[in-house]
Amino acid sequence: MRPSHKVLLASTLGISILAASAGAFAQQAAAKPETLIKWRQSVFQVIGWTCGRVKLALDAANYDKEEVIKAATALAAVSNSGIGPLFAAGTEQGKGWHDTAAKPELFAAGSKVGEIAGNLARETNELVKVANSSDAAAVKVQFGKVTATCKACHDDYRVKPS
Amino acid sequence: MRPSHKVLLASTLGISILAASAGAFAQQAAAKPETLIKWRQSVFQVIGWTCGRVKLALDAANYDKEEVIKAATALAAVSNSGIGPLFAAGTEQGKGWHDTAAKPELFAAGSKVGEIAGNLARETNELVKVANSSDAAAVKVQFGKVTATCKACHDDYRVKPS
Repeated sequence: MRPSHKVLLASTLGISILAASAGAFAQQAAAKPETLIKWRQSVFQVIGWTCGRVKLALDAANYDKEEVIKAATALAAVSNSGIGPLFAAGTEQGKGWHDTAAKPELFAAGSKVGEIAGNLARETNELVKVANSSDAAAVKVQFGKVTATCKACHDDYRVKPS
Repeated sequence: MRPSHKVLLASTLGISILAASAGAFAQQAAAKPETLIKWRQSVFQVIGWTCGRVKLALDAANYDKEEVIKAATALAAVSNSGIGPLFAAGTEQGKGWHDTAAKPELFAAGSKVGEIAGNLARETNELVKVANSSDAAAVKVQFGKVTATCKACHDDYRVKPS
């Protein structure tokens, strides 16, 4: 797809969160808002599941390097897969598996959200590198950087869990 | 963790689906059945989301290679991340986001399920390679092999969607 066409699509759909490719735009244009919300809630469950596995491995008496590599690889791939289109216009409110926990501020934050998403992508990629090359102590430091990016977004843009 | 300890854990938990590492066992021992079911339902949503993105890219007038690589990479990483422990003993029935769609036969299928999961892991890894090195025609062929592994498992072990 030509760049000019991409820009036109982006403009038409009013998407401001993250850069997204043409295929991703096609999908979000085709999917219902509740489906997009369901997918993004599932993505964050998988992020939570894989982060939980890394934490358990770090807390265990015997460090399981293979387990951390598998969990971190899935975490990074999902974090880098292009989540932005799941926050398309029309998904500011609504129910996927449950009512969206995204605050209205998220959809108005523009480039700030892209920056946070970029931080998550970068720090999870780094976690995979550290998991493959280093021991538990180094993984713990890098995992702290990953969870800091999670917290930064939750603090500003997620409704507090009840 | 020593191999003998791993075997003991596996035996104690009665897990027969997929090989799983010690950290994964620790997590499933700690998590409630409904949480495990929620996680696995989320994993399959992410698999569906990423497969859908590949299909849309293949059906589009202009093939978006970058989009397919991102979607396939997430698909493969999740498929290879160690899903087996999410089917731990105690999760044969119950509700995550919804009632589990896994048939009782899945939990009694032993090595057959490990074989199917291995097929999914292998074919999705191959999809990433093909997506990076080839064009839409080759990706379409390999994507067919991926969805064939999905269908093989659904036919035998998933309750038909109503």
